[in-house]
Amino acid sequence: MLVVMQNDATDEQIRRVVDVIKEMGYEGKPMPGAQRTTVGLVGNDGRVDGSRLESLEGVAEIIHVSRPYKQVSREWRVENTLVEIAPGVVFGGTDIPIIAGPCSVESEAQIVESALAVREAGGSALRGGAFKPRSSPYSFQGLGKRGLEMLALARRESGLPIVTEALDEEGANLVARYADCIQIGARNMQNYSLLRAVGRIEKPVLLKRGMAATITDLLLSAEYILAEGNTQVILCERGIRSFDSATRNLFDLTAIPLVQKLSHLPMIADPSHGTGLRDKVIPMGRAAIAAGADGLLVEMHPHPDQAMSDGGQSLYPDQLGRLVREARAIAEAIGRSITPVPGTVAAARG
Amino acid sequence: MLVVMQNDATDEQIRRVVDVIKEMGYEGKPMPGAQRTTVGLVGNDGRVDGSRLESLEGVAEIIHVSRPYKQVSREWRVENTLVEIAPGVVFGGTDIPIIAGPCSVESEAQIVESALAVREAGGSALRGGAFKPRSSPYSFQGLGKRGLEMLALARRESGLPIVTEALDEEGANLVARYADCIQIGARNMQNYSLLRAVGRIEKPVLLKRGMAATITDLLLSAEYILAEGNTQVILCERGIRSFDSATRNLFDLTAIPLVQKLSHLPMIADPSHGTGLRDKVIPMGRAAIAAGADGLLVEMHPHPDQAMSDGGQSLYPDQLGRLVREARAIAEAIGRSITPVPGTVAAARG
Amino acid sequence: MLVVMQNDATDEQIRRVVDVIKEMGYEGKPMPGAQRTTVGLVGNDGRVDGSRLESLEGVAEIIHVSRPYKQVSREWRVENTLVEIAPGVVFGGTDIPIIAGPCSVESEAQIVESALAVREAGGSALRGGAFKPRSSPYSFQGLGKRGLEMLALARRESGLPIVTEALDEEGANLVARYADCIQIGARNMQNYSLLRAVGRIEKPVLLKRGMAATITDLLLSAEYILAEGNTQVILCERGIRSFDSATRNLFDLTAIPLVQKLSHLPMIADPSHGTGLRDKVIPMGRAAIAAGADGLLVEMHPHPDQAMSDGGQSLYPDQLGRLVREARAIAEAIGRSITPVPGTVAAARG
Amino acid sequence: MLVVMQNDATDEQIRRVVDVIKEMGYEGKPMPGAQRTTVGLVGNDGRVDGSRLESLEGVAEIIHVSRPYKQVSREWRVENTLVEIAPGVVFGGTDIPIIAGPCSVESEAQIVESALAVREAGGSALRGGAFKPRSSPYSFQGLGKRGLEMLALARRESGLPIVTEALDEEGANLVARYADCIQIGARNMQNYSLLRAVGRIEKPVLLKRGMAATITDLLLSAEYILAEGNTQVILCERGIRSFDSATRNLFDLTAIPLVQKLSHLPMIADPSHGTGLRDKVIPMGRAAIAAGADGLLVEMHPHPDQAMSDGGQSLYPDQLGRLVREARAIAEAIGRSITPVPGTVAAARG
Repeated sequence: MLVVMQNDATDEQIRRVVDVIKEMGYEGKPMPGAQRTTVGLVGNDGRVDGSRLESLEGVAEIIHVSRPYKQVSREWRVENTLVEIAPGVVFGGTDIPIIAGPCSVESEAQIVESALAVREAGGSALRGGAFKPRSSPYSFQGLGKRGLEMLALARRESGLPIVTEALDEEGANLVARYADCIQIGARNMQNYSLLRAVGRIEKPVLLKRGMAATITDLLLSAEYILAEGNTQVILCERGIRSFDSATRNLFDLTAIPLVQKLSHLPMIADPSHGTGLRDKVIPMGRAAIAAGADGLLVEMHPHPDQAMSDGGQSLYPDQLGRLVREARAIAEAIGRSITPVPGTVAAARG
Repeated sequence: MLVVMQNDATDEQIRRVVDVIKEMGYEGKPMPGAQRTTVGLVGNDGRVDGSRLESLEGVAEIIHVSRPYKQVSREWRVENTLVEIAPGVVFGGTDIPIIAGPCSVESEAQIVESALAVREAGGSALRGGAFKPRSSPYSFQGLGKRGLEMLALARRESGLPIVTEALDEEGANLVARYADCIQIGARNMQNYSLLRAVGRIEKPVLLKRGMAATITDLLLSAEYILAEGNTQVILCERGIRSFDSATRNLFDLTAIPLVQKLSHLPMIADPSHGTGLRDKVIPMGRAAIAAGADGLLVEMHPHPDQAMSDGGQSLYPDQLGRLVREARAIAEAIGRSITPVPGTVAAARG
Repeated sequence: MLVVMQNDATDEQIRRVVDVIKEMGYEGKPMPGAQRTTVGLVGNDGRVDGSRLESLEGVAEIIHVSRPYKQVSREWRVENTLVEIAPGVVFGGTDIPIIAGPCSVESEAQIVESALAVREAGGSALRGGAFKPRSSPYSFQGLGKRGLEMLALARRESGLPIVTEALDEEGANLVARYADCIQIGARNMQNYSLLRAVGRIEKPVLLKRGMAATITDLLLSAEYILAEGNTQVILCERGIRSFDSATRNLFDLTAIPLVQKLSHLPMIADPSHGTGLRDKVIPMGRAAIAAGADGLLVEMHPHPDQAMSDGGQSLYPDQLGRLVREARAIAEAIGRSITPVPGTVAAARG
Repeated sequence: MLVVMQNDATDEQIRRVVDVIKEMGYEGKPMPGAQRTTVGLVGNDGRVDGSRLESLEGVAEIIHVSRPYKQVSREWRVENTLVEIAPGVVFGGTDIPIIAGPCSVESEAQIVESALAVREAGGSALRGGAFKPRSSPYSFQGLGKRGLEMLALARRESGLPIVTEALDEEGANLVARYADCIQIGARNMQNYSLLRAVGRIEKPVLLKRGMAATITDLLLSAEYILAEGNTQVILCERGIRSFDSATRNLFDLTAIPLVQKLSHLPMIADPSHGTGLRDKVIPMGRAAIAAGADGLLVEMHPHPDQAMSDGGQSLYPDQLGRLVREARAIAEAIGRSITPVPGTVAAARG
């Protein structure tokens, strides 16, 4: 940590900063410059809270040089963490799983039809919301526990593992009983009670980046889960807020190589929410793979024009098939491959 | 709701849109233009979900003309809602309460000293966190229930009502037993389980705007609380994310008159988080009052250089006194006044 | 300047950084930390370009501690610069001038009527565009030189000094012959050829903040003008781009005290473009004064519903009168005053 | 264009809107809704300025349904525009040219060495700045005319066409004499005088997206060039401003398919400025190709650690070679190819 002094800071003010750093248990080294003095805090393990220093007289700014996170960092663990949500469906290795399915579970028929269509198209996991975080309290909020039961049925029928969202601790425990991976949505990325709760459950967690979250914020939220003992965390870029309403969100694909350099956790991408536009999902899904994504999360609905939510950004089943084929070609061009459908010959060989 | 067709949409595609609108229970009126046709959906009460229409062939865009919220709207209730968190401390009227106190409750001595300093400076309510949502799991997370007990003590000693944050349903019930107003922080603005929980508790709620929340998002989150039966909601601007790191957040004061026009709920401002810089809190607190804010929420610490969190943006007690004096002068310039300290002669007269 | 090394940087890489700093003519001081080493560059006068260092092996990040600007800095000149655009109309002192007028000069009658209305309402300078930077090439682009002649006429009729925009070097020379202050618009804030051109003209310059400009960017653009010899620069906040379309721009009032701390140049605010909504101009104009603005720039049109541009955000003349009255009350509450109308008794006394 | 009325608008106010629309030469059709009435403006060719309507009593909002641009639109011209900057180097077709070179021209030796390295790596055009728009007036501003002469030499030595930036009208005329394509940088995207100037020169123009420009803004700026008669325009995504300082800019790859749908002009991407980080240029260059980019613009320097500007984001020559190889594999995966080096056998066959 570096404490930048104002250009007119007095010697006494600089001494006071050095003293407070000593009180905090570290060493402070003043380094005079042409315009201003900087005091370095030596011995910081990344957990120093700079607020005491920030408020001292003569201090202009605190600059954090150490990373504020720890267990999620590649400096903590060099090799990729592999997150296996079902036999053969592994995130973080050479193979790239594609998770697809409708925004919401709407009925037994709909979710089973969806699961079979995902399988048919070449996807390796099924998504579908039973608990839906909707901006409006009057929008469809999901079928809840019944939706989870329908997802379990769809898994039996299709052989695909299930990824579905939880909104609170109670829901997380319920989801953990039915699903293979608990999703934490963008709106709850900084719901620390929920992060701690899933950190105590032994299930893989898919953590989506919040709409205003920096990369550091995302990694700190993952750190909450690891700090509770659960290291099975998949991160997901899904678009952030920006000024152009031409797309629903601003899909930040650079986040993929950035996170992969800073952390050992797998990083996937959701081009459906990332763009909000059906006809942009295929090119941006391809782009995510080319950028190095460890997986895709895609909305597909057997009948988008009857969907109860997000119909406008859901792919048709044949479009999902096309996305998988193009993703496969891109993956191969960079020396990777798309995870085969669970239970197929390709999967057995893989 | 308006369905804008692509410029090359066929008559059949337009007919299909009209038919689907009919299936949804509304009437669709096509309106041909020079470049493209627009289909108006008539009879929308603000709750129509456009996703089915968005996915139809030939549809370019859905434009929402009706407001998606209802009970929070000034179209639903014309007069200001007055939220009284303690006798004489009312938000939404002519008087403007100032809530102040430390970021965190740190000890009995610290919070009682804070409360007395707030009272001395002219504030009318005490803030202080017992449950702290921190970006890092390794930062100080608050004293929890013990912190609430200390806040209750500070109330007895100072006569000031208490505003403090809850992070989950369990915490909200606990906060409700000790405090006068439950704060929902920016990170939880779209934690719908929590919003529903405080909607079922009979206590005023202070809902802070999320870092990436539009005005519509903020009002929709408040709608969740009202939809559960709790109409005692105070909204709060506290800065949003932007591209300039010169300030911690971008303090969006225009949100104040915007919300006041759209909604009957009181709208206050937090210049401490809004700027993140102690020396900007006074000018921006004044600016918030001039923009029409119905209250201020300010961080003050008796000894900022010993604070366990947010020391750098906390006012010294005498700075709070100066802010209250300047806020009073500004308030009077626009025909309003600052709420007197509870239990004083000024309060008795008020 | 601080060169932060990667946590696995070798001693040799650190030595190389120190050597390159030496080649650049400065001294490099390594400072080992618990996680990583930082190398301080000593002797930096704010003009060191870090790109050479950034590309060395083992370097994680370059942190600029010195300010990149110089003559605009308060460290260069402690006292406020006073910019006088006409006798008695001074920016940067205790008095606060209000510049008002239509978006565009449309006709002799319109601009003279506007000028008299501004004067009547209590404004001290007239704005009005002769060269208009419009997003669309098909929108009205201003009357050009004829517009400048009309502005000169309006000055003769009203006694008010003129502020008007220039779009290129040729236009700037023309504007300088007719007007009292050359405005550089937000879109041209980083048009360095134009900045240099107005830096060589002996006329005050009003420089508006660009839509994506940080405070540092704004000050660097002003530095271009000062570097050419023209120190008569007024800065102006006019809203930046953000994610909420509820307002045309995000009016960043914190920029006012920020700039005033960092620079000796006057900083004014434009609540018309800052909000884009007529009914928000009065509250946000008041807020700007309360935040410490050294002036206001406001759109007013004698007949907004006939305006050729920006009609929706232009005040009616009586609304401008109300804004001046309320601004005066706010100014007095913080110990300042509104500049009197040039040529009046109040001005003579002032 | 749609005029949305306030929910309490009177019949008279609605009639007034219809009347003003009539005065403007169009037809106004009121469409009553459950919450509010909308008046459609029929006959709009995309050039109606809504400001008069915006300021009428009872009007809540103006919604633009028609596109404000015209000649750049795919509705105006269905087939892709092909922009050929030199024989065989065509943007907008199946082949994808890669433009590479240093940020600045520094010397004859440097630019010739760069050109040969670009050629060797498989690039098909040379970039290099002679006029540099720098944030600080004290940074290196380019060699000017001498730099252009060095670029001309590099073209003779390498056979590669030249792309270089112009900052003002005079510079544009000079650039046009030496280079094959005039670049307009992000900071000048809304410098309309400059856009008009290059619209009158018969040379291809590479127009970069501004840091706060929406897709619509970008297309409107291109419209300025086409409106003057120059249809040879290449658009370029190069990152926009966002809240995360982890990257220099936010690289918005979704802009590529968005622009390609709305416009017939070619759209390329600049992963160097888009990320600002050398080690992100290769993955994001690949991603741009996968998203459908019609070209890449990449910074490469023969000796990045001696570069006078942008050294930290410049590729080494061998890294450029790797980027071209990986881009080629991705291009082939989606049925496209990388433009061969001019003058080679591959080019002769192509």
